[in-house]
Amino acid sequence: MFTVAKNKTKRPVNPRISARPNEQSSQNADAFAEATARLAEIGKGFYARGWALGTSGNFSAVISREPLRLAITSTGLDKGSLTPAQFLEIDNAANVVQGEGRPSAEALLHLAIARGLHAGAILHTHSVWSTVLSGSHALQGGIALEGFEMLKGLEGVRTHKHREWLPILENSQDMIELGERVSKILRESPGIHGFLLKEHGLYTWGAGLQEAKRHVEILEFLMEVPVRSGAAQSA
Amino acid sequence: MFTVAKNKTKRPVNPRISARPNEQSSQNADAFAEATARLAEIGKGFYARGWALGTSGNFSAVISREPLRLAITSTGLDKGSLTPAQFLEIDNAANVVQGEGRPSAEALLHLAIARGLHAGAILHTHSVWSTVLSGSHALQGGIALEGFEMLKGLEGVRTHKHREWLPILENSQDMIELGERVSKILRESPGIHGFLLKEHGLYTWGAGLQEAKRHVEILEFLMEVPVRSGAAQSA
Amino acid sequence: MFTVAKNKTKRPVNPRISARPNEQSSQNADAFAEATARLAEIGKGFYARGWALGTSGNFSAVISREPLRLAITSTGLDKGSLTPAQFLEIDNAANVVQGEGRPSAEALLHLAIARGLHAGAILHTHSVWSTVLSGSHALQGGIALEGFEMLKGLEGVRTHKHREWLPILENSQDMIELGERVSKILRESPGIHGFLLKEHGLYTWGAGLQEAKRHVEILEFLMEVPVRSGAAQSA
Amino acid sequence: MFTVAKNKTKRPVNPRISARPNEQSSQNADAFAEATARLAEIGKGFYARGWALGTSGNFSAVISREPLRLAITSTGLDKGSLTPAQFLEIDNAANVVQGEGRPSAEALLHLAIARGLHAGAILHTHSVWSTVLSGSHALQGGIALEGFEMLKGLEGVRTHKHREWLPILENSQDMIELGERVSKILRESPGIHGFLLKEHGLYTWGAGLQEAKRHVEILEFLMEVPVRSGAAQSA
Repeated sequence: MFTVAKNKTKRPVNPRISARPNEQSSQNADAFAEATARLAEIGKGFYARGWALGTSGNFSAVISREPLRLAITSTGLDKGSLTPAQFLEIDNAANVVQGEGRPSAEALLHLAIARGLHAGAILHTHSVWSTVLSGSHALQGGIALEGFEMLKGLEGVRTHKHREWLPILENSQDMIELGERVSKILRESPGIHGFLLKEHGLYTWGAGLQEAKRHVEILEFLMEVPVRSGAAQSA
Repeated sequence: MFTVAKNKTKRPVNPRISARPNEQSSQNADAFAEATARLAEIGKGFYARGWALGTSGNFSAVISREPLRLAITSTGLDKGSLTPAQFLEIDNAANVVQGEGRPSAEALLHLAIARGLHAGAILHTHSVWSTVLSGSHALQGGIALEGFEMLKGLEGVRTHKHREWLPILENSQDMIELGERVSKILRESPGIHGFLLKEHGLYTWGAGLQEAKRHVEILEFLMEVPVRSGAAQSA
Repeated sequence: MFTVAKNKTKRPVNPRISARPNEQSSQNADAFAEATARLAEIGKGFYARGWALGTSGNFSAVISREPLRLAITSTGLDKGSLTPAQFLEIDNAANVVQGEGRPSAEALLHLAIARGLHAGAILHTHSVWSTVLSGSHALQGGIALEGFEMLKGLEGVRTHKHREWLPILENSQDMIELGERVSKILRESPGIHGFLLKEHGLYTWGAGLQEAKRHVEILEFLMEVPVRSGAAQSA
Repeated sequence: MFTVAKNKTKRPVNPRISARPNEQSSQNADAFAEATARLAEIGKGFYARGWALGTSGNFSAVISREPLRLAITSTGLDKGSLTPAQFLEIDNAANVVQGEGRPSAEALLHLAIARGLHAGAILHTHSVWSTVLSGSHALQGGIALEGFEMLKGLEGVRTHKHREWLPILENSQDMIELGERVSKILRESPGIHGFLLKEHGLYTWGAGLQEAKRHVEILEFLMEVPVRSGAAQSA
């Protein structure tokens, strides 16, 4: 079982299978406006913390489940001045349904996570902590986070004794190939709350945006701790 | 003697033993409104500094002493957008007297500190510094802070030669059991201004909110210093 | 080929070779007002991040190409309160054409970069990261940055496998001599996106201001990573 | 010769030896209002950077030279919410001439610097960097800062080849005794721009407030560099 799947009742956007086209379109418009306003605010906060410098990072939220529609950042944006108008609505194949601009090639990873985990929001950051730690621990294939109270900020975790495995995948520019590896790791590592791309950054998600934002903060914190402790020092 | 107990005259909220019910209720309402406005402001400041990420941390103030009433953060809040409306009023047994939501299980620790030390405010943060240091020094049962001018920011300390013992308690999810260990350490370590839960965070307090906020800043600073000095490096 | 030269079509300020004097003057005034408003905003952001403390750093943008005119910070300014009125317009020889104050002696380096790389904006920061790294790697004459996804934020870079050479030049107070060394390194290192002056800071540039700002954020990030990893530790 | 003394023409507040009493009083009131507004703004900025947490730090400016009058922070203030009304005017013996509250015991050090160096403003911060560095280098009696471009932000320094000696004095709670040691070090170390009190913090100054603020930023930066380089690691 995946963690997010356990929390279906919390999903802010319900799949509206039987909605009539017009109704759905209007519902999507509301969901899109609400999601992009919040995504822009969250993105600016991450930029301020240095987690999305230099146009890095991309952020998405599920607007409808059937058919699958995501609100996602257009590529190449300065996250320090992110606005709702800079988001796109994309379909299941990363085609732009609404909005100006081009989605990041990494939109395919967002879609893989939205489908594979029934996630309602997917956030991707590039922090110094994730860059350092994913480099120092790449050979181990991941890093185990255990014993920290902050683990309880990850959905479904009830004790600091939890052992969270944060997989590290080799980075790639081939998003088809990387998307397949991501889907595979999601299937083979039930219960994970995020993964790292080596010397690239963090992907995490949640049933909704608030949960996904919380997971970014928790995982960035839990990566900062070993780096500050000297566990990532090049020797 | 406990430090806080020495400063009774500074307590912003006086025990109003003989107040008539209606009068007291109105006094409590004023105290609750004032305390929660300030607590929300302080909490947002801690979030900005990275001391309360991902819904971590909880903050309380004594609203009345007899009967004991605390204003305390509801559980699971994003401290970056904390508002006075997100606080609860709880009684001596952590029952909610006023407000929407559920108190954190750690409310029992706040109550133990409010009772044991006659503290007027209790603040609990999760910083990277306290997480690293409480892990590296857990075997010693605490860390001694000595020689720093900043120690004088702790109530009652008059010289940098003061030796502050910051106990580190093993973390637990059993708040009854942990509450007892906290009460014991408070009794056995008169004069301490805070304690750490291992790989969890800092508890500190003050006669009033301003003093408690100052203690957070002082102790976070004094924990950052040894980590920056390499005293917590994993070898 | 220089990176910036490849992006001629993106230059926000076109050389207006055949413009009549009055027309040009009015066009320059608009370009100057627009550039200085944005430069002031960018400068305050860098100050907030600690990349331009204590009047350090200087920032410029090309206002016209023929004749060459730069908007550039006056010397000795507190970048935390930078305003458009604190910028000067200078010509090809660093003479002040417009504005109150004196350009930094380093204006000669800005002009060398504007000419040598056809850059539209030049940004110079003094961060702790660049100071530490340029000191620890001075003997190697530079530092190679390779394998990081963030490299793709540098104009023209398409893969994390890119190897970016960041040259480190010995610092000097003789701007004529240093300007010649800078021009030489720009000729001999085609494709670089910036360089360091030893224990001084970073110079980077872009076709326009937004690109130059992005390059600062990317290069500062990529310098912070090795310092945090311990690669710059004095042993 | 002292550095500050060389810049007499820059002093924002002139000694008004021959001013008539009423005139002087009105001039002082203006100088006091102007200085305290700026001091409050500077203090809040230092607090935001973590250089004046937990009521630490104190800030002053010379309001008149003959008789000597300083505007100085009252003791025990939260620097994050500093207001002009929280400043005192003190005389040559640290008696309060105007304002509510009590000056810090360290007012005597401010007076010693104002007299000994003809400084127009004195700023004292408690950063993690100065705490760590003054501890690690106390046995050497100071730290030499050399080779850094940022040194040029110190008044009168024209080249990065400058060697700045930053003395470290043993901390003390006896301000009479410490004031004498401070006066002695100022006499014996002409040209210094600041000094450290061991595991306490930085004192620096300037002909005016802007210069003193710049010196804080420069010296804090130059202390952060060796700590980040590992030069202060406990081994």
